[in-house]
Amino acid sequence: MKTDLPLSAAPLTRHSGQTLSEQLAGQVAERIRQRLLAPGARLPSVRDAARRHGVSPHTVVAAYDQLLAQGLVEARKQRGFFVRGPQAEPAAARSRAASGADVAAPKVAPIDATALIRGMFQAGGGRPGPGLGTLPAAWLDLPLLHGALRRVLADDRQAGASASALLYGEPAGDPRLRMALSNRLQDLGIPAAPERIVTAVGATHALELISRTLLAPGDAVLVDDPGWAVESARLSRQGLRLLPVPRGADGPDLDVLAALATQHRPRLYVTVSVLHNPTGHTLGLNTAHRLLQLAQAHDFLIAEDDTYAYLAPPHAPRLAALDGLQRTVYVSGFSKILAPSWRVGYLAAPAGLVDRLIDTKLLSTLTSPALLEQAVAVCLEQGLLRRHAEKVGALLASARARSVRLAEAAGCRFLAPPQGLFGWLDTGVDTERLALPLLDAGWLIAPGSLFHASHRPSTAMRINFASSQDAAFWKAFVAARATMKNAGSGPALS
Amino acid sequence: MKTDLPLSAAPLTRHSGQTLSEQLAGQVAERIRQRLLAPGARLPSVRDAARRHGVSPHTVVAAYDQLLAQGLVEARKQRGFFVRGPQAEPAAARSRAASGADVAAPKVAPIDATALIRGMFQAGGGRPGPGLGTLPAAWLDLPLLHGALRRVLADDRQAGASASALLYGEPAGDPRLRMALSNRLQDLGIPAAPERIVTAVGATHALELISRTLLAPGDAVLVDDPGWAVESARLSRQGLRLLPVPRGADGPDLDVLAALATQHRPRLYVTVSVLHNPTGHTLGLNTAHRLLQLAQAHDFLIAEDDTYAYLAPPHAPRLAALDGLQRTVYVSGFSKILAPSWRVGYLAAPAGLVDRLIDTKLLSTLTSPALLEQAVAVCLEQGLLRRHAEKVGALLASARARSVRLAEAAGCRFLAPPQGLFGWLDTGVDTERLALPLLDAGWLIAPGSLFHASHRPSTAMRINFASSQDAAFWKAFVAARATMKNAGSGPALS
Repeated sequence: MKTDLPLSAAPLTRHSGQTLSEQLAGQVAERIRQRLLAPGARLPSVRDAARRHGVSPHTVVAAYDQLLAQGLVEARKQRGFFVRGPQAEPAAARSRAASGADVAAPKVAPIDATALIRGMFQAGGGRPGPGLGTLPAAWLDLPLLHGALRRVLADDRQAGASASALLYGEPAGDPRLRMALSNRLQDLGIPAAPERIVTAVGATHALELISRTLLAPGDAVLVDDPGWAVESARLSRQGLRLLPVPRGADGPDLDVLAALATQHRPRLYVTVSVLHNPTGHTLGLNTAHRLLQLAQAHDFLIAEDDTYAYLAPPHAPRLAALDGLQRTVYVSGFSKILAPSWRVGYLAAPAGLVDRLIDTKLLSTLTSPALLEQAVAVCLEQGLLRRHAEKVGALLASARARSVRLAEAAGCRFLAPPQGLFGWLDTGVDTERLALPLLDAGWLIAPGSLFHASHRPSTAMRINFASSQDAAFWKAFVAARATMKNAGSGPALS
Repeated sequence: MKTDLPLSAAPLTRHSGQTLSEQLAGQVAERIRQRLLAPGARLPSVRDAARRHGVSPHTVVAAYDQLLAQGLVEARKQRGFFVRGPQAEPAAARSRAASGADVAAPKVAPIDATALIRGMFQAGGGRPGPGLGTLPAAWLDLPLLHGALRRVLADDRQAGASASALLYGEPAGDPRLRMALSNRLQDLGIPAAPERIVTAVGATHALELISRTLLAPGDAVLVDDPGWAVESARLSRQGLRLLPVPRGADGPDLDVLAALATQHRPRLYVTVSVLHNPTGHTLGLNTAHRLLQLAQAHDFLIAEDDTYAYLAPPHAPRLAALDGLQRTVYVSGFSKILAPSWRVGYLAAPAGLVDRLIDTKLLSTLTSPALLEQAVAVCLEQGLLRRHAEKVGALLASARARSVRLAEAAGCRFLAPPQGLFGWLDTGVDTERLALPLLDAGWLIAPGSLFHASHRPSTAMRINFASSQDAAFWKAFVAARATMKNAGSGPALS
């Protein structure tokens, strides 16, 4: 089972049934299988790998030859060994090629974004990964979840043959949840009646419903840069042309956005307005207002991804609130605060779009699980989720303070003020290369390149404040960075 | 709430706050909103509608004028009034146009297929619809579902902070369920180790993962004709070229299939091998063998949709069993036997495809709900599902016998031997036109045109044996058909 695999590589040993080169080849193969080494990634140089594992260069060459023979890596003249891509050409790449798109075409298949999410699923019993995107399991509230589920089962028993479990449920999603969400959104100033709300299998699925409904292959779409890797991978795979909007400590660069909109006529901007991933930035009122004016002037819609809603500062403005849900489709979910595996997310949309979004949902999953949607409704109705979120907020504030101290002591510089779950910081070295020795030491990090649609090298790294409080990680980080600098990894990238 | 709307139209009344024409316009508008009148559908002629509702032709004209003013219908010269399509051009249609596809291009947007699935969700407390695709709620076993859920919650409590609810879960799906499914598939002769299995949010989602992974817009795909309306709508919307393979009482026409494969080089055939929807036909061994030979000769894969697995006769051969899961992706789920709203489905795939399918799932819903997957595992492990399926099989056999008697007494002729959940029969009149007066009388039927990718008119109709046992339906059916014949609806279509 994947979950049983330790993240850290076992040390190579001479007292094993396998030769050292077989052990090394096996470790690398396993990482390729898990996508911790993504297609297109370069393996460490023979000299680096030999030093790191305490073996002779000959052993490393033998191991790489085995990987070559297995078809897992390829040798490129003068450049080294690279992880091979998937055997068949992915559909999105073909359709991208057919549409003649040339904007931000990824250098390699965008699939390596899935390395990070695959990592999420391996963190079960293991060491917390500073690069992961979730709250620690211990911060979540199992009795809260079970209490809500038991309540729904009791209601269902009362209902007998009209129990929700026995029917497909409404295409738009469970009516009880949509009512509770409507109340929640009113509190945020978003005028979403229950008829405007469509539930989905997590916020990711809600974003999928939006882009599948509104965009066709070859269409242009604005995205945050840096931005959430899975989202840009998803949009790329749909055959869309990604238009990266630079996002710094002050938010999206609206001048660039306007120029891109003029030139490429995008139909949609997918953005995280509050506690942006990875920078932690939250849009101010003026930026939000100007952004909506641009959306109107250039006639594009905005998918506002509010995944971190429950970690947000009170009164953070939402685009959908300013806009009155006219040109904005609001998206959120409960994986980051309540229960990742319940996969409950939702969207609230302009009236004219709701039916089309429901049709896309019908053709994708028919409906979504009513039991879990009703359990979320119970948590919302009774104020249980709000109280839980307050507790998590306090834990996160203290974790953030500690992580920031450790990061700065390790010589990192924050690229945006630390807020919410994620920190975005400059390490001074290429973080994609830094990821490999840290993986050997048992730490999964999120290198900056993952957050750029172009996958360009970066010295930035995203940390999860909740899982970066361990001084042992920062010790390993400093050691790995020193090795890289000593090995002459060249000047720091911008 | 949609579910509260009665399926049957309220009689028009002169003692209302609204005029007769306003009432009639309101009823038609509501049906358009619910998609019970699909885009492209023709409204009844003024004369027909006047007679049916007992009002003057002038009242009908006034009602249709109101619908025209609301933009819900359009008038076509000499032809009558038609329901308008969605306002924006759907993405799939655009991309289909761009790819120059001309094979089986639907006459109207394929979206009217969703009328039938939307109907499924309205059947809650109401009269059973002979056209629906589900088992009656009363045939399902709520205590079985709740017992399994309680068992999972108890296990989760033991696990504490590593409880599955608190983690995202494995991308491939819950390991316990995949193990139970592997055992189940071994019983069917399908050699699927747990690593070959990927869970999904229902069988529909599994089919979506397959087509999104294997096909790009413009690609050709073979489908059953007649076949399940939602599947062809889904594939059309993905921008694929549908190649309909005629499927009669003897199964798919392999000569036509071979010719289409030669001419269009499809990459995939999506087919229901056992208890085909709508014909009820199950592939024999020789046809299955020849079909797999064709797949090899023309180098296409087969997505074998085994949605009705638990209603199937014992020893019905599966393509995936003959094939050893080399060229077949097997799909099934539990909505038709256990719990529609749990949305648990799965696929089993050739080894080389599994990782690509998991990546598609990650970018679509990340993972799928572990709680519900584990509850299905409990039902499978303890033989509870098998015993439940035996009970349902007995109920269905008796319902089928009764429905067949009633249908034949009403002058219908079965186009394939009655088996499984669905009957496919010839009514002698255009069933799309027949649907309207029956809807007025409160009965939702599934007209034959829905099961053809071309949406061509048809005198066939699909009935659900479990919900067609009511003599009152067949009485309404005979009356509606007589009205149509008297009104001179023209010669029967083939």
